[in-house]
Amino acid sequence: MYRNFKIVPNIIFGRGSFNQLGDVLRSKRPTPDSTMVFVLDDVFVGKELEQRLPLEKGDLLLPVNVDDEPKTSYIDQLVAQIRATSPRLPDGIIGLGGGSAMDIAKAVSLMLTNPGSAADYQGWDLIKNPAVYHVAVPTLAGTGAEISRTTVLTGPEKKLGINSDYTLFDQILLDPELLAGVPKDQWFYTGMDCYIHDVESLEGTYLNEFSRAYGEKSLDLCRQVYLEDHADKDDKLMMASYFGGMSIAYSQVGACHALSYGLSFVLGTHHGIGCCIAFDQLEEIYPQGVREFRAMMARHEIHLPRNLTRDLDDQALETMATVALGLAPLWENCFGANWREVMTRERALDLFRRM
Amino acid sequence: MYRNFKIVPNIIFGRGSFNQLGDVLRSKRPTPDSTMVFVLDDVFVGKELEQRLPLEKGDLLLPVNVDDEPKTSYIDQLVAQIRATSPRLPDGIIGLGGGSAMDIAKAVSLMLTNPGSAADYQGWDLIKNPAVYHVAVPTLAGTGAEISRTTVLTGPEKKLGINSDYTLFDQILLDPELLAGVPKDQWFYTGMDCYIHDVESLEGTYLNEFSRAYGEKSLDLCRQVYLEDHADKDDKLMMASYFGGMSIAYSQVGACHALSYGLSFVLGTHHGIGCCIAFDQLEEIYPQGVREFRAMMARHEIHLPRNLTRDLDDQALETMATVALGLAPLWENCFGANWREVMTRERALDLFRRM
Repeated sequence: MYRNFKIVPNIIFGRGSFNQLGDVLRSKRPTPDSTMVFVLDDVFVGKELEQRLPLEKGDLLLPVNVDDEPKTSYIDQLVAQIRATSPRLPDGIIGLGGGSAMDIAKAVSLMLTNPGSAADYQGWDLIKNPAVYHVAVPTLAGTGAEISRTTVLTGPEKKLGINSDYTLFDQILLDPELLAGVPKDQWFYTGMDCYIHDVESLEGTYLNEFSRAYGEKSLDLCRQVYLEDHADKDDKLMMASYFGGMSIAYSQVGACHALSYGLSFVLGTHHGIGCCIAFDQLEEIYPQGVREFRAMMARHEIHLPRNLTRDLDDQALETMATVALGLAPLWENCFGANWREVMTRERALDLFRRM
Repeated sequence: MYRNFKIVPNIIFGRGSFNQLGDVLRSKRPTPDSTMVFVLDDVFVGKELEQRLPLEKGDLLLPVNVDDEPKTSYIDQLVAQIRATSPRLPDGIIGLGGGSAMDIAKAVSLMLTNPGSAADYQGWDLIKNPAVYHVAVPTLAGTGAEISRTTVLTGPEKKLGINSDYTLFDQILLDPELLAGVPKDQWFYTGMDCYIHDVESLEGTYLNEFSRAYGEKSLDLCRQVYLEDHADKDDKLMMASYFGGMSIAYSQVGACHALSYGLSFVLGTHHGIGCCIAFDQLEEIYPQGVREFRAMMARHEIHLPRNLTRDLDDQALETMATVALGLAPLWENCFGANWREVMTRERALDLFRRM
C-alpha cells in the first residue's frame, strides 16, 4: 500500500511575487465582510514587511512570538484570541515567517474548525474537519514547513506534529527576496534542516524513486548554496527547501531528527540548531553527510554550541531518550525493522551526553 | 506577474500501486448509482490491464483508438457516446495509456461539463466550468500529459491544446510496472519528448529557479535511463516525465515542439517521433542537446524516418510553417522577444524541407 500523497495545490514562485499576495487573497474573500488573519513572526513588527501586508478592512494582524518553539497552549490561546475578535470564522489564515510561524498558521487554521485543544490532535490523521483556507509565505527557507503535512508542536507530554492532509497549506507563495536580511546563523541552521532532511531521506530504508529524485536535487541545491557562490542562492535555497519537503513524501527523516526532538523537548532548543547539534554527533551513521556538513560550517564560520547536556540530571536525559525513541518511523527508516537492537536506550543516552 | 501555478493535488507512486486504483475511486463514488468511465488505449483491449480494471456496476469501459493523434471531432463523438449511455454525468473519468489516451480523458472530462465542441476551447483559459473528476494512469512515460494543464488536440484549423487549470488531472497514479512491455521505439520516442522538453526549458529565456530545478533533475534522470543501465529505469523514466512536466510550469518548450506541431498537423506524425525528427535538425539551436540525443539514438539503435516532407507541395509546407510560427510563446522562450527576426518563415520552411 502506497500513500496517496497530497500536495499543496497552488504555488507562486518568483522574485517580487509577494506583491501578488493581495490578488491571491481577493479571490478567497467571498463577501464584503470576509476577513483574513495574518500570522506574522513578531520580528517583522514595525518593519517593511508589516507595511507591505495587503490588509483589508476587518482583517486581523496577529503577531506571534517564536522565541520558544510553538506550544499547543500557545495555539489554543491564539485561536481564542481570533474567536474573540469576531463571531464568524475568518476566510483565510496567512502565515509569514519561518517554520515556527508557518506551523502556527497551520495549527490555528486547523483548530478554528476542530473542537478542543491542539494537544488532542498531536499524532497522525486525528483531525476530522477541513481547516480554514491557509497560505504560507516563508521568510526563511529550509524547514519544508511550507509543503509538509504536519505542524510540529510541543505539548504537555510530547513534541509531536499534527499530521494530516488538512494540515497542508492551500497555497504557497515563494518570493526569494523575502530571504534577504536573515541573520547568518539562522540562515545556516534553517538551511541545514533541509540538508539533513535530504541525507536522512536518501540514506533511509523507505526511499523510492519519487523521494530520491526530490532528495537528490535538494541536496544538489544545498551544496550550491552552502559550498559555492551563486547570485541567486536565495532562489536555490527556496527550491531546496521545497524539494526537501517533497522528498519526505514517501520517505522519512531519521536519527538526527529523532534526537533533535528529544533535545528540543527538554531544553527548548530550536529545531534547526538542534538538528545541527545532533547531526554533528552522527558520523557513525551518516559519515559522508556529517563530513560535508562540517565543511559547510567551516566555510560559513559557524560555531556550534557545545556541552548543552552537561548539567542535566539523569531524569532529564531519560526524558530526552524517551521522546527520541518514541519516534519509531524515523528509526525504522534509518535502521530498518530491527532498529531497537541498533539504537538502544543506552546508545541514545550516550549520544545525548556528547551534545 | 507570476503565474499562480496549479499542481495535480494527489499522487500515488510505486510499483504495484495500480492495485489501489479501486480504493482511490471508491471515495469518489458518492451514491450507489455513481459511475466511472475508463478511457483505455485500445491496444490493451483483451490484455491483462483490461482485466485488472476496477470496474463496478454501471461503469463504462471506453476503448479509444490513438492511431491518429486526438482530434476535436473524436472528443465530441466520445462525449456524445458517454451521454448516450446515461442521463446523468459520470463521477469520474480515468485515462489509461500514453499521452494521447490521457489527453482524451482530460478533454472528455472537460467537455462533459462545458457546452459546444472541443474545438471551441483550443487556446488559453477558455474553459468556464470545472471538469468531471479525472484520473491519469500512464502506461507510457515522457509526455508529461499526466501533470500538464493542457490537452493537445488537432482541430479543423489548428493543432493546439485546451489550456486551463481545469484541464489538470485531480489524481495521478504512477505505477512503473505499467511501463513493462512497451515497444522499444515507442519507449524511446516518448521518453525523448521529455528529454527535449528539458533541453528547451533549460535553454529558454523564460527559465527561473523553479523550472530549472525540475528540468535539471529530469534531464539527469533521462540520461540515467537512456545512457546508463539501471534496474529501476522505469521508475526513473516516470519521475523524469513528471519533473519534465513540472519544469514547464514557469517555462515553455521551444523550437522543436513548435516545428513538431507543424509536422503533426500536416502529416499526422505522432508527437514523440515528430519531436525527434525535428530535434535532429536543430543542432544550430541546441548543439549539446542534439549531440547527446544522437548518442541516445545510437545506443538504442533507433533509426529515424527520413525525407518525410520530400513529396509535399509548397502549400502543405506553408501550412506547416504557419502552424509552427503561430506558437509565439514557444519561439519567444527560445529566442527572446525578437524571435521573428531569428526564425523567419524562410528558415522554418528550410528546416521542414530537411525533415
